[in-house]
Amino acid sequence: MSDTFNRLAATIETRKLDSGGNPDTSYVSRLFAKGDDAILKKIGEEATETVMAAKDARVSGDVSGVIYETADLWFHSLIMLAQFGITPQQVMDELDRRAGTSGIEEKAARKDVLRDAHESDKR
Amino acid sequence: MSDTFNRLAATIETRKLDSGGNPDTSYVSRLFAKGDDAILKKIGEEATETVMAAKDARVSGDVSGVIYETADLWFHSLIMLAQFGITPQQVMDELDRRAGTSGIEEKAARKDVLRDAHESDKR
Amino acid sequence: MSDTFNRLAATIETRKLDSGGNPDTSYVSRLFAKGDDAILKKIGEEATETVMAAKDARVSGDVSGVIYETADLWFHSLIMLAQFGITPQQVMDELDRRAGTSGIEEKAARKDVLRDAHESDKR
Amino acid sequence: MSDTFNRLAATIETRKLDSGGNPDTSYVSRLFAKGDDAILKKIGEEATETVMAAKDARVSGDVSGVIYETADLWFHSLIMLAQFGITPQQVMDELDRRAGTSGIEEKAARKDVLRDAHESDKR
Repeated sequence: MSDTFNRLAATIETRKLDSGGNPDTSYVSRLFAKGDDAILKKIGEEATETVMAAKDARVSGDVSGVIYETADLWFHSLIMLAQFGITPQQVMDELDRRAGTSGIEEKAARKDVLRDAHESDKR
Repeated sequence: MSDTFNRLAATIETRKLDSGGNPDTSYVSRLFAKGDDAILKKIGEEATETVMAAKDARVSGDVSGVIYETADLWFHSLIMLAQFGITPQQVMDELDRRAGTSGIEEKAARKDVLRDAHESDKR
Repeated sequence: MSDTFNRLAATIETRKLDSGGNPDTSYVSRLFAKGDDAILKKIGEEATETVMAAKDARVSGDVSGVIYETADLWFHSLIMLAQFGITPQQVMDELDRRAGTSGIEEKAARKDVLRDAHESDKR
Repeated sequence: MSDTFNRLAATIETRKLDSGGNPDTSYVSRLFAKGDDAILKKIGEEATETVMAAKDARVSGDVSGVIYETADLWFHSLIMLAQFGITPQQVMDELDRRAGTSGIEEKAARKDVLRDAHESDKR
């Protein structure tokens, strides 16, 4: 699994314009040429498509669309990370860091828990 | 990197209600108890938070928020995959499959290319 | 204001394929021809673009992008409503109904309040 | 219809903190107290919930959820506009301006058309 993200990230780096990426022939280079907002818009788009694929899967019983759209979402996440000079390993380190201290979900949920606690204080 | 997603997926499995997960103590179990829509809503939420963090990073020069929110987005993607009985390896296989045939971005872009081609045919 | 939504909704109706809308010349007809998912994807896209425009506005002090993107979001909401046979007045009636009973925000917040209450019960 | 948005916008104004809005008792005031990101996150959330409701409606044949979630999306749009000092009439004026010149959908679609044209130039 490691190889997949690392290899994709390496390929994506070669598509940057100052690495010689060509927007005429490369979809990824075209996104880099368009800049931040075009890349971030794809995050929103792919998230929406993932949600729709999941709703479809519950009806059809076929989860292949969820796999496909999650692949798209993760792929465009890697493009976004590259745009901001972040490696996928840095995100994995953040996930490991949460898991290594007080349990992944406690950290993952921290924002929700704090928000919920805050809300209930108010009532 | 492989270890991170695999270990997280294994932990998430133990939080399923029929694996003994307890919604009173576990954030992930609570999401499983709420069901599809609560989990899918998180995909939309975390995508929006990632986009906002990226916009902030461009102003502040500090990308730590992008790392944090991408970790959240990927973590909740893993919960969604578990909810639909999909392993992260299946998504990685899809990404490898694309890369192995005609180049990752050609496959990743297929939908866009087809859509654009379709649109330009129409004009 | 009423006139705007009503007039737009009337125009959108004429773009439906069985009202003679032509996908070759009309953007709205093209969305109707593509169907539910293309229309719903636009809701996710326009929401993301609105969020990005708002982040930009806070930096630049120029809110014109927020106005523009909110117009896009509302316009595509009207297309979605038309796709599902809903008039904008039905949504306005729902908003009026909330305001008329126990105060708009109490009703609007009901889901959040219930969720927060539920969460705090669990802790 | 005009009355609904105008009346809601007026109510929302009274919930601003410097208009005496109280976060302890008002959901809208609580959003204002939290600031931009909390409000913008709701745009992403409500858009996702609208998409899910529409997918459900296609299966169940019951569109009431779409009406409900669109009301939520529009309501939170009004809160966002207020946060940025924009009136709903300014958005309606933008929609009218598009319709008044070269037809609503031509203007609404301009970005898409330009993007598609740009993409097809590249191929």
